[in-house]
Amino acid sequence: MNFSSKLLEDAVNEFSKLPGVGQKTALRLVLHLLNKEQEEVNQFGNTFIKLKQQIKHCSTCHNISDYAVCEICTSPKRDKETICVVEDTRDVMAIENTGQYFGVYHVLGGLISPMDGIGPSDLFIDGLIVRMAAGGIKEVILALSPNMEGDTTLFYLYKRLKEFNVPVTTIARGIAFGGELEYTDEITLGRSIVTRVPYETAMMK
Amino acid sequence: MNFSSKLLEDAVNEFSKLPGVGQKTALRLVLHLLNKEQEEVNQFGNTFIKLKQQIKHCSTCHNISDYAVCEICTSPKRDKETICVVEDTRDVMAIENTGQYFGVYHVLGGLISPMDGIGPSDLFIDGLIVRMAAGGIKEVILALSPNMEGDTTLFYLYKRLKEFNVPVTTIARGIAFGGELEYTDEITLGRSIVTRVPYETAMMK
Repeated sequence: MNFSSKLLEDAVNEFSKLPGVGQKTALRLVLHLLNKEQEEVNQFGNTFIKLKQQIKHCSTCHNISDYAVCEICTSPKRDKETICVVEDTRDVMAIENTGQYFGVYHVLGGLISPMDGIGPSDLFIDGLIVRMAAGGIKEVILALSPNMEGDTTLFYLYKRLKEFNVPVTTIARGIAFGGELEYTDEITLGRSIVTRVPYETAMMK
Repeated sequence: MNFSSKLLEDAVNEFSKLPGVGQKTALRLVLHLLNKEQEEVNQFGNTFIKLKQQIKHCSTCHNISDYAVCEICTSPKRDKETICVVEDTRDVMAIENTGQYFGVYHVLGGLISPMDGIGPSDLFIDGLIVRMAAGGIKEVILALSPNMEGDTTLFYLYKRLKEFNVPVTTIARGIAFGGELEYTDEITLGRSIVTRVPYETAMMK
């Protein structure tokens, strides 16, 4: 692209670095910002700088937080004996939105992925082991995405957690609500037959 | 969405204000930024603030520029006797990318749109009239998008430019390169027959 201005080009390039944003989209976003008042643009830019400067990770569960320990870990309403292990903050938000989980979390900060050079030591697994070793945990739920990296991490965690003699569960895999049986892949469908559940359990709210 | 952090929520809201960016996309972009170094995030934020503070509009053609007069208007290689009138900077870039135009531009900064409350006085039309009145212009090319607002603006400009007795042309409308004749709408196809051009002209590079 030929830009009439170096400043414009710099701004477009900054947006283009974001995932899923191409040059044309970036240009549209920059021109949108240019139509705003200086004050609004300042706020736009400074919000991200402030976020990066001030954001913390909960010292217990490693979730993103404004405080040293996050609101879920400090809440007296949450069941501290159940830990749900997830990949990142987005998964915490997704599970919180269901309104079906009342325990606490542990955020790994990623999944084991040898292809991307991410090993167990790059994740916050040691913190989980420390929490387990401290005792008082009655169940660990592994809520990881059902893909290659998720399954590798699942297997690794399962082996590490065995020594604590605490039940380790994983979220159910099967056909999504609203899904069509005939279009479901064989692995999912086959597994959903093997791991079938009593009607009363499945229909429970 | 339930955010675990106010800072995170603020950042997501800033991205969500941009056109075509929803909350889920915004969250993905914010988490991507959070994984960067503080310095990179500072650069990201400050680029837009600096852009808004320092950007200029060319005093001649009103295109976005780093200088008081843009590089196209000052270039000795450009034909100053031909003015191409466009809606905004994106159109200048699009035409420049074709490598087929060597005149100068005039950027209107929008199109007449009574529905959105944008009248002729909101656009940089007076500057165009001043340039015409100064003399030495041999052709005005109106390169506006072929939609309701574009056609309204075209009609208005044509009436205003009449008094200068300079040829006023518009970019050709017709079937786009690679388009299928049978799927082309009736208005476009009908017009493309009425405004047919000699084979030699059409095939000229």
